[in-house]
Amino acid sequence: MRIALDAMGGDFAPAVTVEGAVEAVNETRGLSVTLVGNENEIADELHGKKFETSVISVKHASQVVGMHEAPLTAIRRKKDSSIKVALDLVRAGEADAMVSAGNSAVVMAKALLTLGKLTGVDRPAIAAVMPTLKGLFVLIDAGANVDCKAANLYQFAIMGEAYAKSIFDIEIPRVGLLGIGEEDAKGNELTKETFKLLKDSGLEFIGNIEGKNIFMGDADVVVCDGFVGNIALKISEGLAEVIAKMLKREISESTSGRIGYFLMKDALRSFRKRTDYSEYGGAPLLGLSKPCIISHGRSTAKAIKNAVKIAGEFYRKGVLDIISKAFTATGPKKGKR
Amino acid sequence: MRIALDAMGGDFAPAVTVEGAVEAVNETRGLSVTLVGNENEIADELHGKKFETSVISVKHASQVVGMHEAPLTAIRRKKDSSIKVALDLVRAGEADAMVSAGNSAVVMAKALLTLGKLTGVDRPAIAAVMPTLKGLFVLIDAGANVDCKAANLYQFAIMGEAYAKSIFDIEIPRVGLLGIGEEDAKGNELTKETFKLLKDSGLEFIGNIEGKNIFMGDADVVVCDGFVGNIALKISEGLAEVIAKMLKREISESTSGRIGYFLMKDALRSFRKRTDYSEYGGAPLLGLSKPCIISHGRSTAKAIKNAVKIAGEFYRKGVLDIISKAFTATGPKKGKR
Repeated sequence: MRIALDAMGGDFAPAVTVEGAVEAVNETRGLSVTLVGNENEIADELHGKKFETSVISVKHASQVVGMHEAPLTAIRRKKDSSIKVALDLVRAGEADAMVSAGNSAVVMAKALLTLGKLTGVDRPAIAAVMPTLKGLFVLIDAGANVDCKAANLYQFAIMGEAYAKSIFDIEIPRVGLLGIGEEDAKGNELTKETFKLLKDSGLEFIGNIEGKNIFMGDADVVVCDGFVGNIALKISEGLAEVIAKMLKREISESTSGRIGYFLMKDALRSFRKRTDYSEYGGAPLLGLSKPCIISHGRSTAKAIKNAVKIAGEFYRKGVLDIISKAFTATGPKKGKR
Repeated sequence: MRIALDAMGGDFAPAVTVEGAVEAVNETRGLSVTLVGNENEIADELHGKKFETSVISVKHASQVVGMHEAPLTAIRRKKDSSIKVALDLVRAGEADAMVSAGNSAVVMAKALLTLGKLTGVDRPAIAAVMPTLKGLFVLIDAGANVDCKAANLYQFAIMGEAYAKSIFDIEIPRVGLLGIGEEDAKGNELTKETFKLLKDSGLEFIGNIEGKNIFMGDADVVVCDGFVGNIALKISEGLAEVIAKMLKREISESTSGRIGYFLMKDALRSFRKRTDYSEYGGAPLLGLSKPCIISHGRSTAKAIKNAVKIAGEFYRKGVLDIISKAFTATGPKKGKR
């Protein structure tokens, strides 16, 4: 598995990207990484790190896209950005998958232009993995598309189901539609329309699922438009962080609390691990013709490491073939609402 | 403050509604409650409880609306439901505010028909109070309206700001628009349109606020449509519950963890209190001509008690007058997008 990593992408690049890449190849047999970006800066970061030289290479790119740069301008003006050069490696077959923690709007737009879509897909979507009380679930779309039509959500369901099958190793993933009530008739225009399509889809459709139940583990795939999905994802991250902070504050305000905290350290660490976004590292943009994994802008080295590993697994398991077959098998509705 | 409480509304009624009402009047001077519903069942629940008889009365209603009954049918067929009779008391001036933990769709529809709207308001919205790292904020609309227009969200902002002013005692509440990026140009069609209206509104508009930041305390009012708001609210509740459960499980798996838990009990209790929805008890449906508070279907006696107190405060502080004045002062856009 050969991964092209945008070494300049993210708030703490290239330090954490290079560190994450080195950790990933050291931990995973068969994985190699091409670090794409400013070769001097990358060389500086690689200096002194231990790894087998055959599994890390560097590809120079002279430009970097800023985290808040407007997509259109960035795409037009920066023809030699690390994002573009990394995607070109995948397009040319010199890498199997691309990973970036850079400006996600630019990565998405550029990936669409460079790699193209799978047959049957109108709009690629971000599939984020999130924890539940029992395990994990896939949230799709976690932010690629605002203002969707029902046919788009229908396709997200098919892609999400195929993804859940391969990463969770379950035969028949349960698909839920994120909504505001469990009754069939509840929701907004978009979800009501989507409900009808999913009911007749042949998927294991469990109906509407409410926000309060997505963490209970009732569904393996939760479908929504990218605006709602991004808010759902960000609220979950924000709340988990705030709860951890509140807990810490309450604890540190009393002596018995501090002693208790000391005794509970392992339990708290294990808890934090389960709610820590960087454990999952990155989310694929599903529906492209090649694997492309988008990571958090504020990714740590651990998050990058996990994203690179996820990219390798994604390729090794042939997730895109599984999605392609799903589209052929179910014959999805196209184009209109 | 005379509160009409739908004694039959909610999953555990009338036991918890009667208990909550008794606790509320016992704790709050000047508060009286009329329990509306089946007089025999209410009498049974009141039996043996201590309270001053002058502050609790009973008003019989022969029908109960089921928690999952369709609004149109319930409204057409149940002319003597506890919801309807309680609202009639407010309309007739025999009560100052109405509280119900019953079928919220029916309460909303019936309240609109019975009490009518404030001048300037096209659609009433639910204003839910949620905790942040620093204090509290108002989320509006938390679920009354799906498929909104920008003019609706603009009005939600005005109502939410007026509500925040009176319940948080702050002079200039900061208003944020729930979105998927902080840049002005990010969002879906609805939020982009709303952004323009809020920028010129004269409100202290801080721009788009991302899901991950709403719990940081950056905004006092967070505006969104009711579909997104309801999902945001339910996800927050669901996640807080699941995190508490995960934490408990991790803790109970080791001896030192259990001892630590024992030492941290107070800290954990205080933490739980901050994230416990029942502390806030109920959310007003803002924009009606009279106070109407909607509570969780699964409200406990504590949640009902707090909802009844909130209803009293809402009336005492003249929140509706403040909202009315805000509409006159700002001259909101009407009707179209």
